[in-house]
Amino acid sequence: MEPGHKPLVDDDGIGAGYSYPRTPRMNVLLVLLGVIEALGVAAIAMVCYWTAHYRGGFAWDGTGQEFNWHPVFMVVGMVFLYGNAILTYRVFRDQVKLGVKILHTVLQIAALIFSIVALVATFDFHNANGIANMYSLHSWIGLIVVILFALQWVLGMSTYLLPFASRWIRTLFMPYHRFFGLVIFAMSIATCLMGLTEKLLFTIADTYSSFAPEGILVNCLGLTLVLFGGFVGYIATREDWKRQPLPEEQPINMSIE
Amino acid sequence: MEPGHKPLVDDDGIGAGYSYPRTPRMNVLLVLLGVIEALGVAAIAMVCYWTAHYRGGFAWDGTGQEFNWHPVFMVVGMVFLYGNAILTYRVFRDQVKLGVKILHTVLQIAALIFSIVALVATFDFHNANGIANMYSLHSWIGLIVVILFALQWVLGMSTYLLPFASRWIRTLFMPYHRFFGLVIFAMSIATCLMGLTEKLLFTIADTYSSFAPEGILVNCLGLTLVLFGGFVGYIATREDWKRQPLPEEQPINMSIE
Repeated sequence: MEPGHKPLVDDDGIGAGYSYPRTPRMNVLLVLLGVIEALGVAAIAMVCYWTAHYRGGFAWDGTGQEFNWHPVFMVVGMVFLYGNAILTYRVFRDQVKLGVKILHTVLQIAALIFSIVALVATFDFHNANGIANMYSLHSWIGLIVVILFALQWVLGMSTYLLPFASRWIRTLFMPYHRFFGLVIFAMSIATCLMGLTEKLLFTIADTYSSFAPEGILVNCLGLTLVLFGGFVGYIATREDWKRQPLPEEQPINMSIE
Repeated sequence: MEPGHKPLVDDDGIGAGYSYPRTPRMNVLLVLLGVIEALGVAAIAMVCYWTAHYRGGFAWDGTGQEFNWHPVFMVVGMVFLYGNAILTYRVFRDQVKLGVKILHTVLQIAALIFSIVALVATFDFHNANGIANMYSLHSWIGLIVVILFALQWVLGMSTYLLPFASRWIRTLFMPYHRFFGLVIFAMSIATCLMGLTEKLLFTIADTYSSFAPEGILVNCLGLTLVLFGGFVGYIATREDWKRQPLPEEQPINMSIE
């Protein structure tokens, strides 16, 4: 048994709490963070190579080249930046909380901007080519995800970054902020998977089933997004990697603010 | 402020634990469970109506009618039964733990059987019609989900239902059992969304974009699956609805087993 771990035995092990060591296994956290960043960069590289090499590259002219910004910016914004924003409190454990809060907020407004530009690229492309908007399951869930993400950002910033909310409101809202943050993130990745599926069937329906390299590349991109999301979810839900208050943030000091 | 709630103030509300009332709000839990069952039944009704009314009904003859079992059995097994299995410990809070364990296990072996028959239906349909297997992102992630689900079932049963694992192994493994249970469930729903997208583009690509009723029905089915998954995830992660040990399960009694 690992030193420092003291299992609770009051409940047959099932449903029981788990007494984590007081010093979290930071080396494991660091390795996992490295894996996550590698997966994230790999996903961005794959979506760029796919759109640049197989789908004709980028432009802003109403053609498929304008559409190509859509998958790239969604992977950058709603997966990579969003995932990293979720992790800020686990990564910057020893920094002043206000700084971490600002980083958490800025990463997500950047993600929101990327996702809005990505949406504009798609609507532009559709409108310029007489393609209907908002008929697919991908578009329905995707738009819901971006709206929920924007709401979550506004509510989160109003509650935690601006100085107006009282402490008990911040505490009461926190489980919901964390739950919805992770659910919207999972929905975002699921929407990417639907989008990849759609685009492949729109473009290489005749060769996808004979294992065309483009199809295999995009399938691997989808798997990479799932792995990225899984690791982010794991780190974000392990209680023993939760940021602990710094000495100057202890209640004894806070009470004299 | 709600009576019984006592927020912790040691951490600015952010990242702080939350002291839940000792008596969980069971009426809220019951309402949410009712909503979940309604969503689950609605999803099954929608997938049955879709395949029966729009896709030609059911048979076991290698035709598209055999394929139709695939979405129906996946929604029944990998969404409805799996989701209900996740909730067993929250629903049957006052029952003897062994009984709840057995129900948790049985619901999931039933889900696994449904999913295997669903896979066989698809492979049969593909092989009878010269369609390639395992080329799509849906098939890659879907097969991974079923394999992970089966592994999770075997590991869970070996650890918690069979009497061999020691208590500290049960306790050590529990956070992973819970985390992977929810991640595989989320992946299962994401796979359904990809499958719905695929099937619509294979069958009604020409009318989907003009908002054909079939497309709207299947989009609504997808939204229902997401809502079902979201509510299951919410109940499963709220610590204050966790099953508490019965009096006879307290450590004082367990130590004299």
